[in-house]
Amino acid sequence: MKKVLSVNAGSSSLKFKLIDMPEEITLAEGNFERIGKNDAIFNFKAQQIKEKNVVSILNHEKAVQLLVESLTASKVIKDLKEIKGIGHRVVHGGEKFNDSVIIDDEVIKEIDVLKELAPLHNPHNLTGIKIFQKLLPNVPSIAVFDTAFHQSMAKEAFLYGVPYEWYEKYGIRKYGFHGTSHEYVSNRVSKLLGKENANVIVCHLGNGGSICAVKNGKSIDTTMGFTPLTGLIMGTRSGDIDPAIIPFMINKTNKTITEIENDLNKKSGLLGISGISNDSREIEEGIKNGNKRCILAQNMYTRKIASYIASYHVLLGGADAIAFTGGIGENSSQTRQEIVERLTVLNIDLDKNLNDVRGIERLISTKKSEIKCFVVPTNEEVMIARNVIRLTSQ
Amino acid sequence: MKKVLSVNAGSSSLKFKLIDMPEEITLAEGNFERIGKNDAIFNFKAQQIKEKNVVSILNHEKAVQLLVESLTASKVIKDLKEIKGIGHRVVHGGEKFNDSVIIDDEVIKEIDVLKELAPLHNPHNLTGIKIFQKLLPNVPSIAVFDTAFHQSMAKEAFLYGVPYEWYEKYGIRKYGFHGTSHEYVSNRVSKLLGKENANVIVCHLGNGGSICAVKNGKSIDTTMGFTPLTGLIMGTRSGDIDPAIIPFMINKTNKTITEIENDLNKKSGLLGISGISNDSREIEEGIKNGNKRCILAQNMYTRKIASYIASYHVLLGGADAIAFTGGIGENSSQTRQEIVERLTVLNIDLDKNLNDVRGIERLISTKKSEIKCFVVPTNEEVMIARNVIRLTSQ
Repeated sequence: MKKVLSVNAGSSSLKFKLIDMPEEITLAEGNFERIGKNDAIFNFKAQQIKEKNVVSILNHEKAVQLLVESLTASKVIKDLKEIKGIGHRVVHGGEKFNDSVIIDDEVIKEIDVLKELAPLHNPHNLTGIKIFQKLLPNVPSIAVFDTAFHQSMAKEAFLYGVPYEWYEKYGIRKYGFHGTSHEYVSNRVSKLLGKENANVIVCHLGNGGSICAVKNGKSIDTTMGFTPLTGLIMGTRSGDIDPAIIPFMINKTNKTITEIENDLNKKSGLLGISGISNDSREIEEGIKNGNKRCILAQNMYTRKIASYIASYHVLLGGADAIAFTGGIGENSSQTRQEIVERLTVLNIDLDKNLNDVRGIERLISTKKSEIKCFVVPTNEEVMIARNVIRLTSQ
Repeated sequence: MKKVLSVNAGSSSLKFKLIDMPEEITLAEGNFERIGKNDAIFNFKAQQIKEKNVVSILNHEKAVQLLVESLTASKVIKDLKEIKGIGHRVVHGGEKFNDSVIIDDEVIKEIDVLKELAPLHNPHNLTGIKIFQKLLPNVPSIAVFDTAFHQSMAKEAFLYGVPYEWYEKYGIRKYGFHGTSHEYVSNRVSKLLGKENANVIVCHLGNGGSICAVKNGKSIDTTMGFTPLTGLIMGTRSGDIDPAIIPFMINKTNKTITEIENDLNKKSGLLGISGISNDSREIEEGIKNGNKRCILAQNMYTRKIASYIASYHVLLGGADAIAFTGGIGENSSQTRQEIVERLTVLNIDLDKNLNDVRGIERLISTKKSEIKCFVVPTNEEVMIARNVIRLTSQ
């Protein structure tokens, strides 16, 4: 048995999970919020322990120290040597990384170079990597990229209709994100179907959201693009828009392009349409109260998802299954039902009772449904841990 | 019998067709190019006459004078009074116009206001309207808007996932274009199917291109958006891209946003990908010579079209027919075949012999095809003339 730590470091946050492999049993998990503040939060959970500490954590290094101390103090591990590997979620692997990789100086340099494609993520992912390397110098660390799973897309799928030099010189192309989740879920669905070369449409619906068309275990298309802004309508992101809206709005409002970009990332999506919230639970609450803008937001949301599912069904040459994951995908039976209602022509049929489920892996379509539907809770941490085991066992 | 003139005035061009209604017989047609130059071109065709004149035409008024003189000189008409109405193509009707309209001072004012949504088109359309009103003051003139047919879209289809105020304050929404063509073609297809409430997907594929989902004679969705930039990959337009590419490219190249927007409109699409041409005939030639970038451009082009057809098939609740129109749609059997090959899961089947056709209205699918496919040469001028007759007969 090998203990593996999955880590996801953000600008002021750090999430972790200690997993016993290959059994995939979670031994401890938790997260830090508000790193950099005197009232930072440290949540820690292991067996009988469930703690929430509000403490001063002025930097990520301090957070990792606390994490390591908690693992031994709680007796989840006796010795740090028991940790056989650390897997780091890294958002952007560009075209350089089509798989996870053992981190060495060269890899660190590459992740740093790629920060220009993910300025809000890669630098913080890298901070996490460096601190763990400093505090646990003998434990191998592995980078697991959000983009890697989508590197299997064909050129005709990942290029945009822009001057070809933009791709060659500046790396303008579709990268796609949520790859670790799409890989985990499509993998699960293949197992549930008992079919290795399945055609699966994975709908990762959370505050961020993307859909992925998976053929024979490989991503052939996905809705996010050069950045996570595009594709589906999300909690606060616009998803697909006419790009000509940007210059028009700059002209109209005298805002800077950075401000407009910020509006599209932070003030759009469900929040922008509803005017109420980016949280789909509050949108559903609004719908119950007859709020027209919430109804509109939800309709736009499910319509967009349905049209991508339709596209991917055809691009795949026929989907075997549609899987719902992520906060909304796993928990909102209402949203799943509304999406599937828009797909009637594909002869998809949800079982109302089976669909009445939150966060449990399950078939939710009827026997007569021509495309099977599943709820599959995602587990990026386990996927990361599997990669750690695979790469450190070679 | 009523003679109606269809007019399409651009910045340095003017196209016209004199049509005998209701028989829809073309009596004369032609166009002006390079208006404003000493070597402008005036093409004129009527019965036995086919002329190409290179003359100095310094403004649109001079062009219209020449046009009117040619109509009488060629004896197509004896008296200008025979012209019962003039229909003007106007690109943008905003939310104000959901139908064609008899032009009065109020309408002229509205078209002028709407120029902010179509700065490259509405002002020139208006120039054409004013000159004909001046030279033929007693002939009623009708505005036929490219956007009007799409005003039937539901809010959930025409809104973007941006802050709702952007719609309320600035009119940010999907308008769609090529409406006159989509209406004409879907109308023809309904007749060919012998089914009034048909679900039709119209693919208008020219140097510009858009697809429209038509349900029971009404547009329920279309690929162009706030502007004609978005949707399909076109001759020189990018179609859908991640809007975050714009700020990234500005940052990288120090170009202005106007220059980037210009690149997306003029240097992208088939031209940008192939590096060779915006003309699909030259792309096809390149493919024959094994040019990889031409193959890529064509694959990206047909893939995008196929995925929109798939979406619209589902949004329509099942399409009865797919129609191809526009320069490429009417003439490239190769492109039609490649699109349909990507749709095999929908059980669409082209008849190779029937599909071997250029510019002729015809069924091109086999009997076993579950969705019928047609080539339908578009005829915006006739559609405009029909609107003139309808509105002037009320």
